[in-house]
Amino acid sequence: MKILVLNGPNLNLLGRREPDIYGSLTLADIEKSVRAHAKDCGVEADFFQSNDEGALVSKIGEAAGHYDGLIFNPAAYTHTSVALRDALMAVKLPCVEVHLSNPQNREEFRHKSLTVAACIGQVSGFQDHSYILALDGLIQYLKNRR
Amino acid sequence: MKILVLNGPNLNLLGRREPDIYGSLTLADIEKSVRAHAKDCGVEADFFQSNDEGALVSKIGEAAGHYDGLIFNPAAYTHTSVALRDALMAVKLPCVEVHLSNPQNREEFRHKSLTVAACIGQVSGFQDHSYILALDGLIQYLKNRR
Amino acid sequence: MKILVLNGPNLNLLGRREPDIYGSLTLADIEKSVRAHAKDCGVEADFFQSNDEGALVSKIGEAAGHYDGLIFNPAAYTHTSVALRDALMAVKLPCVEVHLSNPQNREEFRHKSLTVAACIGQVSGFQDHSYILALDGLIQYLKNRR
Amino acid sequence: MKILVLNGPNLNLLGRREPDIYGSLTLADIEKSVRAHAKDCGVEADFFQSNDEGALVSKIGEAAGHYDGLIFNPAAYTHTSVALRDALMAVKLPCVEVHLSNPQNREEFRHKSLTVAACIGQVSGFQDHSYILALDGLIQYLKNRR
Amino acid sequence: MKILVLNGPNLNLLGRREPDIYGSLTLADIEKSVRAHAKDCGVEADFFQSNDEGALVSKIGEAAGHYDGLIFNPAAYTHTSVALRDALMAVKLPCVEVHLSNPQNREEFRHKSLTVAACIGQVSGFQDHSYILALDGLIQYLKNRR
Amino acid sequence: MKILVLNGPNLNLLGRREPDIYGSLTLADIEKSVRAHAKDCGVEADFFQSNDEGALVSKIGEAAGHYDGLIFNPAAYTHTSVALRDALMAVKLPCVEVHLSNPQNREEFRHKSLTVAACIGQVSGFQDHSYILALDGLIQYLKNRR
Amino acid sequence: MKILVLNGPNLNLLGRREPDIYGSLTLADIEKSVRAHAKDCGVEADFFQSNDEGALVSKIGEAAGHYDGLIFNPAAYTHTSVALRDALMAVKLPCVEVHLSNPQNREEFRHKSLTVAACIGQVSGFQDHSYILALDGLIQYLKNRR
Amino acid sequence: MKILVLNGPNLNLLGRREPDIYGSLTLADIEKSVRAHAKDCGVEADFFQSNDEGALVSKIGEAAGHYDGLIFNPAAYTHTSVALRDALMAVKLPCVEVHLSNPQNREEFRHKSLTVAACIGQVSGFQDHSYILALDGLIQYLKNRR
Amino acid sequence: MKILVLNGPNLNLLGRREPDIYGSLTLADIEKSVRAHAKDCGVEADFFQSNDEGALVSKIGEAAGHYDGLIFNPAAYTHTSVALRDALMAVKLPCVEVHLSNPQNREEFRHKSLTVAACIGQVSGFQDHSYILALDGLIQYLKNRR
Amino acid sequence: MKILVLNGPNLNLLGRREPDIYGSLTLADIEKSVRAHAKDCGVEADFFQSNDEGALVSKIGEAAGHYDGLIFNPAAYTHTSVALRDALMAVKLPCVEVHLSNPQNREEFRHKSLTVAACIGQVSGFQDHSYILALDGLIQYLKNRR
Amino acid sequence: MKILVLNGPNLNLLGRREPDIYGSLTLADIEKSVRAHAKDCGVEADFFQSNDEGALVSKIGEAAGHYDGLIFNPAAYTHTSVALRDALMAVKLPCVEVHLSNPQNREEFRHKSLTVAACIGQVSGFQDHSYILALDGLIQYLKNRR
Amino acid sequence: MKILVLNGPNLNLLGRREPDIYGSLTLADIEKSVRAHAKDCGVEADFFQSNDEGALVSKIGEAAGHYDGLIFNPAAYTHTSVALRDALMAVKLPCVEVHLSNPQNREEFRHKSLTVAACIGQVSGFQDHSYILALDGLIQYLKNRR
Repeated sequence: MKILVLNGPNLNLLGRREPDIYGSLTLADIEKSVRAHAKDCGVEADFFQSNDEGALVSKIGEAAGHYDGLIFNPAAYTHTSVALRDALMAVKLPCVEVHLSNPQNREEFRHKSLTVAACIGQVSGFQDHSYILALDGLIQYLKNRR
Repeated sequence: MKILVLNGPNLNLLGRREPDIYGSLTLADIEKSVRAHAKDCGVEADFFQSNDEGALVSKIGEAAGHYDGLIFNPAAYTHTSVALRDALMAVKLPCVEVHLSNPQNREEFRHKSLTVAACIGQVSGFQDHSYILALDGLIQYLKNRR
Repeated sequence: MKILVLNGPNLNLLGRREPDIYGSLTLADIEKSVRAHAKDCGVEADFFQSNDEGALVSKIGEAAGHYDGLIFNPAAYTHTSVALRDALMAVKLPCVEVHLSNPQNREEFRHKSLTVAACIGQVSGFQDHSYILALDGLIQYLKNRR
Repeated sequence: MKILVLNGPNLNLLGRREPDIYGSLTLADIEKSVRAHAKDCGVEADFFQSNDEGALVSKIGEAAGHYDGLIFNPAAYTHTSVALRDALMAVKLPCVEVHLSNPQNREEFRHKSLTVAACIGQVSGFQDHSYILALDGLIQYLKNRR
Repeated sequence: MKILVLNGPNLNLLGRREPDIYGSLTLADIEKSVRAHAKDCGVEADFFQSNDEGALVSKIGEAAGHYDGLIFNPAAYTHTSVALRDALMAVKLPCVEVHLSNPQNREEFRHKSLTVAACIGQVSGFQDHSYILALDGLIQYLKNRR
Repeated sequence: MKILVLNGPNLNLLGRREPDIYGSLTLADIEKSVRAHAKDCGVEADFFQSNDEGALVSKIGEAAGHYDGLIFNPAAYTHTSVALRDALMAVKLPCVEVHLSNPQNREEFRHKSLTVAACIGQVSGFQDHSYILALDGLIQYLKNRR
Repeated sequence: MKILVLNGPNLNLLGRREPDIYGSLTLADIEKSVRAHAKDCGVEADFFQSNDEGALVSKIGEAAGHYDGLIFNPAAYTHTSVALRDALMAVKLPCVEVHLSNPQNREEFRHKSLTVAACIGQVSGFQDHSYILALDGLIQYLKNRR
Repeated sequence: MKILVLNGPNLNLLGRREPDIYGSLTLADIEKSVRAHAKDCGVEADFFQSNDEGALVSKIGEAAGHYDGLIFNPAAYTHTSVALRDALMAVKLPCVEVHLSNPQNREEFRHKSLTVAACIGQVSGFQDHSYILALDGLIQYLKNRR
Repeated sequence: MKILVLNGPNLNLLGRREPDIYGSLTLADIEKSVRAHAKDCGVEADFFQSNDEGALVSKIGEAAGHYDGLIFNPAAYTHTSVALRDALMAVKLPCVEVHLSNPQNREEFRHKSLTVAACIGQVSGFQDHSYILALDGLIQYLKNRR
Repeated sequence: MKILVLNGPNLNLLGRREPDIYGSLTLADIEKSVRAHAKDCGVEADFFQSNDEGALVSKIGEAAGHYDGLIFNPAAYTHTSVALRDALMAVKLPCVEVHLSNPQNREEFRHKSLTVAACIGQVSGFQDHSYILALDGLIQYLKNRR
Repeated sequence: MKILVLNGPNLNLLGRREPDIYGSLTLADIEKSVRAHAKDCGVEADFFQSNDEGALVSKIGEAAGHYDGLIFNPAAYTHTSVALRDALMAVKLPCVEVHLSNPQNREEFRHKSLTVAACIGQVSGFQDHSYILALDGLIQYLKNRR
Repeated sequence: MKILVLNGPNLNLLGRREPDIYGSLTLADIEKSVRAHAKDCGVEADFFQSNDEGALVSKIGEAAGHYDGLIFNPAAYTHTSVALRDALMAVKLPCVEVHLSNPQNREEFRHKSLTVAACIGQVSGFQDHSYILALDGLIQYLKNRR
């Protein structure tokens, strides 16, 4: 079982970006703990971060055939990108949307997600632990589907 | 550590309610597996289901002082209840909103949650496994807060 | 053939509630004439009124397996209750929505029905006779479906 | 007692128009059964179908003085015609709006009726039987008014 | 002269519910001072609190004939309950809407009151003193009407 | 100077159509007084009424080259007809929109006029005298343009 | 018969204010021709212009008892002033709203008039001649009312 | 303790302005009874009425340092004036918004108050008695704040 | 292969109707070149223009069984006619929506097409050549479908 | 070169009005530094502040012919005044809109400016320095236009 | 004559992306048939696909001077990109918008095109044949413009 | 003091892109004059232009620690990019938003800026001089903050 963990814009700044909202861990910290947890579960995990909508679209397009599922934190693109939604629908890989914070108690424009409708579900508000829960959920989903 | 798992309207019908959306497990099945998982984590879990908005409001009001956290599937009340939002804010217990399905790819009126802004986060789309993930997330949250 | 007639909030006040809108018959009067008409049609009819959204949700949930169809006047809950809509969808019993008055020439917020989309249709504006027509329509529907 | 049954655009195509929504009876079939039922009730019924908004407006305008009431399926004009609403208000004849299907679980733009506010009520969702129920309701209404 | 003071959802939590918004008095404290003030004015006051929309609807329905007027803090149901509005309109008792805080400088969804249009007026923002003012206003209103 | 006076749907019912809104004169009465006034002003006036949007569109299309200007009461089509707006723009004849009543203190949907933007202006609220004022205004406009 | 002609903000600039929209006559020119026309009709006309919403409100308030009717060009305040609407409703004098241009083919925010609902009607689009037509209409209205 | 009572546009017309909505007392009557009540409470009360938004803004600006609190009936400016809201926020004096009638059961545009968010609360619907209640509430507020 | 080319309101005025938007060719010119091109493709083409929504609805209703496909320029009815949309859906003939100009850079109300959702696609902005391209597209579509 | 600096409502309170938003300088301080900077640039500057929309409209109307340009902080009227927008359009003097704070991160109703569309541009967020920058920009604009 | 064919995000996945909506041809297949058709018409065609909004913006910026026209399928960026609209407006090359499917019978957010207003027109719904028709239309447009 | 000047999509086309809106200077011209002005002020200025949202996000992310402030013309991304807003908020560098033209008198969708709420303020409408003013404003801001 092989999983791709995708991170969207500004997540490369984690640790110094509004720590009261996003926590104090860096993206490297998160990747490290997700990789460890994946290993414990017998799953291979790759990571990709980009500030670029197009690069994320391309990465998703290439994921078909190479991965069994996706964990995706689209960050700001959650609310504006039809292209990422289309990419997820095109490859038909099961994807879990992840957010560090709870977007529903922030600005109005963060209440709507364009991408989540192309996902199996979402996990939000548990800081870095959101990724671990998403991984557990995705593995369970993939096992049930077999 | 003691946790209250709340379930809203129509969830007593699980198993025979639109199984393609909500799965074929009954609420009793879900409670059983959550209880088992809680036990494994050394956590005590109580359960309460009601079709009644007021009964859920009351239960949340009484939870303060008796529980460390809440797992809540408000079902239809997610989209219409200011009273449940106020109850969660009043007791200030950490709460995780849970959904069996992914409400974001259903009717427009299910895209907005009034209750989630009073929660630490949400888990949706993993069927009964959503509860397990929420429990793991809540435990982790409570440990970090200490 | 067995039918359940459900009445929502404030309908217990019929007869003294704004008689120019709702007519001067009491709910007991209506039940009596519906029961008589049902009997003429060889159909058994039960009645349930509640001011409580949750009690109505529960009653609908319990109706599956015991009734062939529902006649439902959700009154004020017509415009606000996702829970009743979900209950109707969960039990999949044919339901006819009934209104004494014509909600479309009253306040704007009465123009939208959340519940009717979970019904086979509606009858509105004929005062107490709305129930008789709904009963005739439901019986016809059930006969055709056989 | 004399009643005019009006049918709006595309209803001349009944039987071959989307039969899963509108049923397999033709408009002639419906007129035949309504006429028979009217006869049983001692009521004279005339019929008029037109695809033309203006022709329907004219027919309603001419109905005053010649008919005691109207049964009207405005079809697509339900959602777009202020002129038909004005015509109904001008002649002040009691009118029952009729729909074969339940417009409330179709496209958003079919949820709003401009014409129904000028009617005493509506019957929808019973296929051809909607007309029979409307006729019964209208007769009852006219009898009560005397 | 006899008056019923109604309190809606979560008001049983007063004193420990967000004291910066709702003040530090408990509901018992408020009832005590309202009762005392009523006594000074020669008015009998009864009290009823419920988290349940239906129970409040029922209580209002039963109030006709037993009370001369109502003081009502619908709390969260202010913004969502058509049923309570209908109940007030059905019994036609003069009612004063009361709020401890000023809902107009809180979230957008608290700016609209469904219930106040069925009241003679409202008093908001004076914490527990809102009830005293409402009582004075209601008594004055009832005296003028004689 | 030759002018065409156009009247839209239901205006053939004037005199018996909601006289408190539209007055008690018939359309023939209005035409008679407009014709007399036109004659006094040395202007020839033709009249055309139709309940049919298409017939009105056609009439406007044919007016170019035969008339110097239009006086138009589009009635209900004021609020719904893009086709009439396009027709007026196509023929480029100066047109004055006329209303017997003041649509701005009636239903919300009567507040917006699709046709008036294709007119030089409008006269509303003077009952039948609206036509006389519109005629005076149009004549003045045509004289100034020379 | 005595009439007050009110002009709102920026109309003192007529003649040099966007002449392609508002024409090249000054306000003095317009007043002169209205006065002459009024004299011909045996009517006394007073004039008042102000850029100040409050001054216009006061003038309307004082008009009751001194004038038989009003002609009012509220200019920009047409679209923003509830106070002027209230003033017109308070004094209950018949008022005709006047516009030099046709506000309906300008910016969206000029399509809605707050004041016209408190008037008997309006005349717009005839430049300075709008006032003459409004005067004729108002005189006719006052004569009919006697 | 010194209080300023402010009254907005058209309130100088009280007594003859739509008495079914605003009552038959004049503003002088109201001021007289408020002054008497204030005297009984040992409070000095000044009064200011203006139809002019700017004059009201200025008066509020000058009130800081001279008054302990404000009672304000902004009338029509309630719904349109950001300037008055800003003035109240600038001087930071406690203010109670007052309405004679209940704006919530009148036109839609009267449902929103721009000014109340800058007030401690509001009293509406008790006719002239609204001012007395507001005065009592304000005095209580000022006493508690000490 | 037999095709019906339908043209909606005001298209009979082509050539003299706003030539900068719609071009200088007449409808006869367009029909001539479409007929020639159809002949070259071995396809028979009939033409029908009407200003009347009802006549167009009827023509579409009659087309089933006589034509293989439709080319339709609904002109102004594009934006207002549910009846034409229903007609297209009823007959289930493949239809291509055609526009001479590009409605998307004109007024806001021309951006929405009610009819196009009942078509296989659209061609817009190529003046008279839009019809030729639509014909080529429709022929290709019909060939593929065989 | 002569410039008029206009300040709208509540700006006379600067220094004591919400200093965290508007800074601690008084309007006199700002005028002093703008005057000094204008002198350095060889430009004459006049100042006018009013809380009165009408007075500001009048001042702008009188500015034509006496000033080469305007610097305008409309404060609260930014969001509500069509009259000021019209005044600016009427005099056609180049105007720069100025704000001390950044209105875009305050309440929603401060995000829309009615006046700025009648200006050449705006400067916002630099506290008192906004005026200096606006002056520099206006001078440069006037020089380029020569 | 030289033409650039631009394809937006996810079109590189054609053939395996939701074939029921987008067809089973790959982008290479489409390019091949467009190139062949272009050659037949004596036109040179270049192709560019990118998932990156910025890369598409740049490509359009560079197209001026090198191409006579553009054929553009903006895919998901159709609905979200102001930058692409600006790029098309900046280079002023005639562009035809192309869609494989008919976006108007898919999700609501696909009904609005930001880019088409910067194009001469569009062709949608003919699968890969949309490109051929667009090419024919563009060539015709360019010939006419000479 | 070191400042980064960022330019968004299509600004590389300045000089030939709609010169009536954006002026005739190229981006190189603007950079040259900003650099010169910065030098005069003793400030170092770097420049970066990209058509790519992601590249701009990255550049802002890297700016923290290397620059004291930002001047940013987000062009089309002003209205659509949450990612750029988040980037500005993440790095917490003071930023001034700059526009060559005045977006407020262009299309509706250009009236809303997503990015400006993350800036200290904005300068718009002075063509290339907007940058000079923004630089002066930013320097002043940085000096005050020390």
